[in-house]
Amino acid sequence: MPDLRKDPIVGRWVIVAKSRAKRPHDFESTSRMKTGGFCPFCEGNEDATPGEIIAYRPAGSHSNREGWRVRVVPNKFPALEIEGDLQKRGDGIYDMMRGVGAHEVIIESPQHLLSTADLEEEELREVFWVYRDRLVDLKKDPRLVYGMIFKNVGEQAGASLEHTHSQLIVTPIVPINVWEEMTGSLEFYNYRGRCVYCDMIQQELATEKRIVLDTPRFLAFCPFASRFPFETWVLPKSHSSHYENIQKNGVEELAAVMREVIGKIEVALDRPAYNYIIHTAPFDSQELPHYHWHIEIIPRLTKTAGFEWGTGFYINPVPPEDAAAFLRDVDMDARTAKTLPVKKTG
Amino acid sequence: MPDLRKDPIVGRWVIVAKSRAKRPHDFESTSRMKTGGFCPFCEGNEDATPGEIIAYRPAGSHSNREGWRVRVVPNKFPALEIEGDLQKRGDGIYDMMRGVGAHEVIIESPQHLLSTADLEEEELREVFWVYRDRLVDLKKDPRLVYGMIFKNVGEQAGASLEHTHSQLIVTPIVPINVWEEMTGSLEFYNYRGRCVYCDMIQQELATEKRIVLDTPRFLAFCPFASRFPFETWVLPKSHSSHYENIQKNGVEELAAVMREVIGKIEVALDRPAYNYIIHTAPFDSQELPHYHWHIEIIPRLTKTAGFEWGTGFYINPVPPEDAAAFLRDVDMDARTAKTLPVKKTG
Repeated sequence: MPDLRKDPIVGRWVIVAKSRAKRPHDFESTSRMKTGGFCPFCEGNEDATPGEIIAYRPAGSHSNREGWRVRVVPNKFPALEIEGDLQKRGDGIYDMMRGVGAHEVIIESPQHLLSTADLEEEELREVFWVYRDRLVDLKKDPRLVYGMIFKNVGEQAGASLEHTHSQLIVTPIVPINVWEEMTGSLEFYNYRGRCVYCDMIQQELATEKRIVLDTPRFLAFCPFASRFPFETWVLPKSHSSHYENIQKNGVEELAAVMREVIGKIEVALDRPAYNYIIHTAPFDSQELPHYHWHIEIIPRLTKTAGFEWGTGFYINPVPPEDAAAFLRDVDMDARTAKTLPVKKTG
Repeated sequence: MPDLRKDPIVGRWVIVAKSRAKRPHDFESTSRMKTGGFCPFCEGNEDATPGEIIAYRPAGSHSNREGWRVRVVPNKFPALEIEGDLQKRGDGIYDMMRGVGAHEVIIESPQHLLSTADLEEEELREVFWVYRDRLVDLKKDPRLVYGMIFKNVGEQAGASLEHTHSQLIVTPIVPINVWEEMTGSLEFYNYRGRCVYCDMIQQELATEKRIVLDTPRFLAFCPFASRFPFETWVLPKSHSSHYENIQKNGVEELAAVMREVIGKIEVALDRPAYNYIIHTAPFDSQELPHYHWHIEIIPRLTKTAGFEWGTGFYINPVPPEDAAAFLRDVDMDARTAKTLPVKKTG
């Protein structure tokens, strides 16, 4: 069972898992992404993963057999384990608890596709819907307080398998970056009485210069203080703090937006490695007036060096205004343009 | 002139520099480290760098000529620029200022060595002393409030040149991670009346299990909530908030400790890429009872994925107790053992 340990200075929780590796030399090289050969996520190889938690498949078809469209399975090498109680405890000035939680893999397609933009819009809707389904289910567990959904594409982004998939880690603590967003946005709300994310949306819509895509329900833009070149955020225009409260029509539009934005990034940057992460409010809160769920998409173009690691202080060589202009100008194929109710800016 | 821009949610400052690159494809690949061929940092190639700010060289020798032992020059591609005023201003909900600051390179040896542990102890003392000299000089500038000293070794750690060097970035703002350490340690101090770092030192000395090296003035240990495998911190045992207040005898011992700890990491992990970062208090504060300067050494063994980026929540596959035990057991060469007043633990 892994530990959850808290840094006594800044309050950051870390998962410390006892690895199978026995000697330091086992950690020498960075992990390689498996490409080619057998893929445990492809249709027909259902036996190669742990049994499915949920799958969208035709009525009457058998679980852990062919025929599924989206499939959620436990991670074979979980960072956290679902059984047992937390055993919160201190050790002198240190705080820790058992590494209880969930670590699941969302296999986004039965086919060996590589990226979000390779999926059809209809398929992608089911991916964003199954995220919601899993959060709704897992938040019933009183031990767990936060669900992180993220996707790694490409070796530079930390992917270990290339078949398009995302991951869900559900934890008994709130991760520090989310905690900082929660407290920072609360401070703004207490001072101004408004949601800082709603204010950003208003200002971005007014100036237009950092907008990548503007649809009836969503806004995609490169944030004013982008840490990374071509960093792009997607926000719902209507205030909402919890991703899992999204409705069917929201998911339909979100799938189209994510497919187009990631497609634009892939055309502009020649299919870079990338991550996206859904930032949403903790389970144990009701709808919050100060927090606003959003998705951060980060192409992995630059190597972060000691400077960034040590200080959280980033050097971004591409102004977000330039990045957004590049992305707006990317021509997408006719099909995407036809099915999406897009109001292009610029 | 680059911008400094502040994220309105969490308060993180970012340097946004207008790159020379004109098209998105110029950012496609991660930067490669230059190896072999001409090295601008080697003795005899002084013309290949901007003119030196300070160098330790024999009296009577000429600046920007051969004969130096340690040499500090402006970064040829600075992240911040030293001229002009800050022009702090708002843009709607956003805050920004001009990217005023200093970005310097400390060339640690006239010879083409690759790592801190390759330097003789006497050479390394001058490196740690010149850090102090530059901080003392730059903190006289009332526009500047923070000096970050860091070192990148190896391509995976973000180095672009292999000749052993470190960097100094001096900024008009406090970087967010340092700010978090300042506020977190103040909170601990207000609650308990003690420095949290001093408490950590006491507890680590009592349990011994995470100690890597214990000398009269310094303690090196793998922190309880290590984010990375073999992450190692070096702290002065006597409370001190500002690195630049270090004395000659402190620098002498610190050089020996850093050389031995990095040497151990290099033997154990077969010369991995690594970073170290000096965490110190802002210029505009007097000696602080709650903050404690320290050095964080981070071997770059694992690729951080979307999970860590998005949440600040790390998965560390090597418990710090195991890492410290590995490092304690590494045999260093006789010379190091002879010259260092080492009290080994374990």
